[in-house]
Amino acid sequence: MRHVSQKNLHYILIFILALVSQVHAQQLMGFGAESAKKQLDLEAAFDKQLKADNLKEWMKIMTAYPHQVGSAYGLKNAHYIKDKLTSWGFDTKIDTVHVLFPTPKVRILELTEPTKFKASLMEKPFKEDGTSGQTKDVLPPYHAYSANGDVTAELVFVNYGIPADYEELERLGIDVKGKIVIAKYGNSWRGIKPKVAFEKGAIGCIIYSDPKEDGYFQGDVYPKGPFKNETGAQRGSVVDLPQAPGDPLTNGFYASGDKKRLTVEEAPSMMKIPVLPISYADALPLLKALGGQVAPAAWRGALPITYHIGPGPAKVHLKLEFNFDIVPCYNVIATLKGSEFPDQWVLRGNHHDAWVFGAADPVSGAVAELEEARALGELVKTGWKPKRTIVYCWWDGEEPGLLGSTEWVEKYQDILKEKAVVYVNSDGNGRGYLGAGGSHTLEKFINQVGRDVIDPEKGTSVLERLRSKTIVDGNPTARQEARTRPDLRIGALGSGSDYTPFIQHLGISSLNLGYGGEDAGGDYHSIFDSYDDYIRFKDGDFAYGVTLAKTIGRSVLRFANAELLPFEFGNFSNTVQMYATDVKKQLETARTAALEHNKLLAEGRFEAVADPKEPKQNITKMEVAPHINFAPLENALAKLEESAAAYSKLMAKPESISADKIAQVNQIIYKTERYLINQKGLPRRPWYKHQIYAPGFYTGYGVKTLPMIREAIEQKNWAEAEEGVLRVSEVLKNFSGEIDKAVGSIK
Amino acid sequence: MRHVSQKNLHYILIFILALVSQVHAQQLMGFGAESAKKQLDLEAAFDKQLKADNLKEWMKIMTAYPHQVGSAYGLKNAHYIKDKLTSWGFDTKIDTVHVLFPTPKVRILELTEPTKFKASLMEKPFKEDGTSGQTKDVLPPYHAYSANGDVTAELVFVNYGIPADYEELERLGIDVKGKIVIAKYGNSWRGIKPKVAFEKGAIGCIIYSDPKEDGYFQGDVYPKGPFKNETGAQRGSVVDLPQAPGDPLTNGFYASGDKKRLTVEEAPSMMKIPVLPISYADALPLLKALGGQVAPAAWRGALPITYHIGPGPAKVHLKLEFNFDIVPCYNVIATLKGSEFPDQWVLRGNHHDAWVFGAADPVSGAVAELEEARALGELVKTGWKPKRTIVYCWWDGEEPGLLGSTEWVEKYQDILKEKAVVYVNSDGNGRGYLGAGGSHTLEKFINQVGRDVIDPEKGTSVLERLRSKTIVDGNPTARQEARTRPDLRIGALGSGSDYTPFIQHLGISSLNLGYGGEDAGGDYHSIFDSYDDYIRFKDGDFAYGVTLAKTIGRSVLRFANAELLPFEFGNFSNTVQMYATDVKKQLETARTAALEHNKLLAEGRFEAVADPKEPKQNITKMEVAPHINFAPLENALAKLEESAAAYSKLMAKPESISADKIAQVNQIIYKTERYLINQKGLPRRPWYKHQIYAPGFYTGYGVKTLPMIREAIEQKNWAEAEEGVLRVSEVLKNFSGEIDKAVGSIK
Repeated sequence: MRHVSQKNLHYILIFILALVSQVHAQQLMGFGAESAKKQLDLEAAFDKQLKADNLKEWMKIMTAYPHQVGSAYGLKNAHYIKDKLTSWGFDTKIDTVHVLFPTPKVRILELTEPTKFKASLMEKPFKEDGTSGQTKDVLPPYHAYSANGDVTAELVFVNYGIPADYEELERLGIDVKGKIVIAKYGNSWRGIKPKVAFEKGAIGCIIYSDPKEDGYFQGDVYPKGPFKNETGAQRGSVVDLPQAPGDPLTNGFYASGDKKRLTVEEAPSMMKIPVLPISYADALPLLKALGGQVAPAAWRGALPITYHIGPGPAKVHLKLEFNFDIVPCYNVIATLKGSEFPDQWVLRGNHHDAWVFGAADPVSGAVAELEEARALGELVKTGWKPKRTIVYCWWDGEEPGLLGSTEWVEKYQDILKEKAVVYVNSDGNGRGYLGAGGSHTLEKFINQVGRDVIDPEKGTSVLERLRSKTIVDGNPTARQEARTRPDLRIGALGSGSDYTPFIQHLGISSLNLGYGGEDAGGDYHSIFDSYDDYIRFKDGDFAYGVTLAKTIGRSVLRFANAELLPFEFGNFSNTVQMYATDVKKQLETARTAALEHNKLLAEGRFEAVADPKEPKQNITKMEVAPHINFAPLENALAKLEESAAAYSKLMAKPESISADKIAQVNQIIYKTERYLINQKGLPRRPWYKHQIYAPGFYTGYGVKTLPMIREAIEQKNWAEAEEGVLRVSEVLKNFSGEIDKAVGSIK
Repeated sequence: MRHVSQKNLHYILIFILALVSQVHAQQLMGFGAESAKKQLDLEAAFDKQLKADNLKEWMKIMTAYPHQVGSAYGLKNAHYIKDKLTSWGFDTKIDTVHVLFPTPKVRILELTEPTKFKASLMEKPFKEDGTSGQTKDVLPPYHAYSANGDVTAELVFVNYGIPADYEELERLGIDVKGKIVIAKYGNSWRGIKPKVAFEKGAIGCIIYSDPKEDGYFQGDVYPKGPFKNETGAQRGSVVDLPQAPGDPLTNGFYASGDKKRLTVEEAPSMMKIPVLPISYADALPLLKALGGQVAPAAWRGALPITYHIGPGPAKVHLKLEFNFDIVPCYNVIATLKGSEFPDQWVLRGNHHDAWVFGAADPVSGAVAELEEARALGELVKTGWKPKRTIVYCWWDGEEPGLLGSTEWVEKYQDILKEKAVVYVNSDGNGRGYLGAGGSHTLEKFINQVGRDVIDPEKGTSVLERLRSKTIVDGNPTARQEARTRPDLRIGALGSGSDYTPFIQHLGISSLNLGYGGEDAGGDYHSIFDSYDDYIRFKDGDFAYGVTLAKTIGRSVLRFANAELLPFEFGNFSNTVQMYATDVKKQLETARTAALEHNKLLAEGRFEAVADPKEPKQNITKMEVAPHINFAPLENALAKLEESAAAYSKLMAKPESISADKIAQVNQIIYKTERYLINQKGLPRRPWYKHQIYAPGFYTGYGVKTLPMIREAIEQKNWAEAEEGVLRVSEVLKNFSGEIDKAVGSIK
């Protein structure tokens, strides 16, 4: 479609849009036939405003200098955003919070035995990348919230450094106590690696980017191609995010008055050992110097060596010191007041801070959001007003641990619990397919939005393109579903961006949206996430930036104007049923595997097969899971299905219901997600209160659905799994009760 | 078990053997209760003779200098073997045949664009490897039966260079016509790679060892560890073995009198383009210089580069010239005449020629065979005589293309068709698990042998250890079968060693046996397949060499002495049923995949998903397989099952049948395998006559069972598949008829 002339393309798009308006006029969730028509006209007017050149210009400016939290240019960007928003008619302010943000003073990593090598710990600039030569305010590769430390010890290669890898190490008879571990990036959020290493007794942790996952194995390296070159390194936070995001000195509250910060030493989510990210050029001499057993085949990367585990003879010295500063964190908050329901807030956000220049992460999303706001401003100039209040947010301090959004949410939690209808997030954006995750009460809604947005490369809807992707690349089940289920499934939210405090902590229904899949590269959290890189290898013409603005702008407009808020419970019910089936299967699979393993062990099969010249493996009996009582959950799910069906039946024709009653329903249903919260939170992490979705305690960003049940099973805590079943059942019953209340309010 | 003192071990073994004798005395296939007891005593006496030190001493001598076919030391080894056999009481001769054996005169490989590089084409010696510094008579890395050639062209990386890779290249729009291809070793027999390259229009072929499959990715490289170092290269034959083995100038006959050799130019199984094996050190600059599309993820190896496909800008010059000499090929044939049935021959063989020093391949097997022969000689000295004639063979010229064995079999084919009861082969031997392949009429027999041989590392039977291996490492079906099916399944024979002419060409029931799996390394066909390497990394104490001698010696003794020859048809019937189910499933899977592919194509899914910035893929409609009439095969299999059951029932108590009748039965059943032969052979390769087993036309060594049906399906030749069903059904009916004849001869 890209070679169709612009003019023809324009006519084709108008034709398609006209078609879409006609066909779907009656099918806009939450709108009657008449108002749907008006809404679609409004959306067409919104779309017409969007200009790719704006995104490009703003990105160029916002990525010109490093703009991490607390930096001079970060403040400049905040004012840049604020001034624009004000000029577009928003009531805008910079809502400053203060947060702990450690930056490095000393970073030393050296191999001391059997040979000497000093790691450079620097990314080499290239003339092809205009900003890569800057040094002022540039944070070198480091991990925020690492402990200070000066340790020397034998090195052990621990693969990805996740719990399963330590199980393998135990089988191989290798202990990391008192050692420094080196782990590859990948297969978990980075903060899990030092956390598990610490739990296992390691005294230091190095994380490197293996060229297999993130380097030449994937494709040509920067600047020839987009993949990670040998000096590229991934910065990032290692705060214990699955315990709580935000300032680690103020978990769960905003510091003010008598709500005092902890000291760094007291902070429970601070990392307890020193940890440092390095490039594969720096990792190679360390890994090459390792002896001991050869690493299992699945552990080996793409460096030209035999991967050994150690410990030793490689010995390394790791010395890290940080400035533990409290810095200002500038959230930009811009409001368009609602004309009919000013106390119902539609929130939309993207962060503006970066690790360095951050063209993809986060500016690509931040400029799309800016363009949405500008277009909304233009609509307002024509006399339009949103029924509900629209709040546009640009968060600061996302990178170190969702600092800006979390502190803001904690600061305003009472008002947000009351007023927030929905939070729509984006972060980096790129070229390719729609990526959508969020509350499944919004699954049908976002499918309808995706149906109405055109893919710039293909001319079909972004939903249809995603359907094709699922059909072509999905497993047989996913393929079958994509062909037959009316709505495409959306992902569940774990963590890793600013939706976390909204959904996980307060139970505000959320969506996280973005495009990608045709923009792979190794720039993430490196100095090479730059304007030049973005233009060459990502969404260089900002076609998908505009598409994101259309997608989220449309979502915001629909939430703001809907007569009946577009929540739906059938897909949610179906999704949680799927999760329940899944945890039951997980338990059954674990039981079968343990029984089979124990049988093999009892029969002496492992011993019979073992090579006596290889180190003896430590294979022990596995604990067999008991049967667990899932009946309460099954009953709660049956009730949920019933309530959801009753609601859907009643709401098939919202036009026939009085506006007053609809208003009553709205007031109930946007808060239903609050009932998925249990105030006690999840075991050992009370900050996380959502009982359906959470980031995994041992995966980090990656979601665990039905987290209390699923993680208890994974950790063989059977009593807690049973308790989890009861707790999930309880929130589902309360949730169904709210749906029933909505239904009852009309009858 | 290795730490049990030798003395205790000795007692334990005696105890176990005593136990085995008692329990199994009545269960020795082909022996009555009384004769079974005698036979087991004989086997115990045989075992007692075997001495590991002999194997070690003989290996040291036989691997001291290069001993390829036609070499001075090859002749010396032949005489060394002959003199020993003569001294042990065998009637021994060197049966010399003459064969074409090309050796290199000129080998040049250079990168001419975009930079210059000249490949070294040499393996670097190490002081740790005593023979690696030799140069006299050492053949450098080359491919026997490559064409002469002097070509310069752009390079294309073709992954493994098998047909599936060219399908992928076609999708990617890449043509190799007029190019030189570079392929990795692996995933097919090497000769397939230049054969397919030639079919696709390439003018030259380079085959390299990627460190992923064969180098540092696998483990420490030689001489630190056993894996291939950067200069190691794999020699080997590229004659079109799946068309016919043996001298390519005399396919199907032995040259003598008016049976004349073809010229090299006329020979159909000569490779048509120049082809050369290289090390990964030599491959790296070539692959690094490639541009064009990035290779699919599954194609990428372990070199520290982004793998590109090309074509170009890398351009290479490949110049090869060979001496096409006719050389003498010395087969050593040693006979112990049978006392009762001298015209029933039990044949046993292993080759003695190597590519260079050949400690593992083939001397490890050849010395085990020598020790078997010595022990037989000792038994003869005590007055024992085999009932049937035992023929021990050491083949020359196996490496270039099974030259010695094939020419010998073709020379004596009339007598062999009449007299050969069975052929038992070994080749290299190592440390680990029993590997057994062969005619499935011998599956039960070899299971019984494996039951009676003790694993030197574990003290259980080698069969039980193999069962454990299958249970621990096998897929669920294999695991389930290994637990419940009385006999472990043995593999089917394709090609790659000297059993080929016996089973594939003449229909002589064959077995191929060896130990391995704990002796991985990169020495194969390199100068590092040496005595030093073998002692350090393979079966250094020759415990498995002795175990192989026990396994095959026992087999030979049982075949030689059995009252009723130990063929069994139930397992064969079950196996061929499995093959039939498998080809039906293969057809069905191909049909379903093609239908699904065509549906995706018709729906426009591939186009919807495609990244417009990537090269456009050439995705076309797939041919959908028709339904094929398998009924004739199903009927033939039903008949076979019936005949096999009738035979088993009748032979449950062979003692109750008169010796005369048993003799009649024997005369029929050892020739049943001949009826699996069809004289027309397989399509386009008449030399291969067996209709159940054949090496794959496009896989090489790898077996294709029911080859005519299976390969026709793979090549979408539906008419030939239907014809294949009829042909297989016919041989099975004839085969069943012979079983019926045996049954009838008794009733």
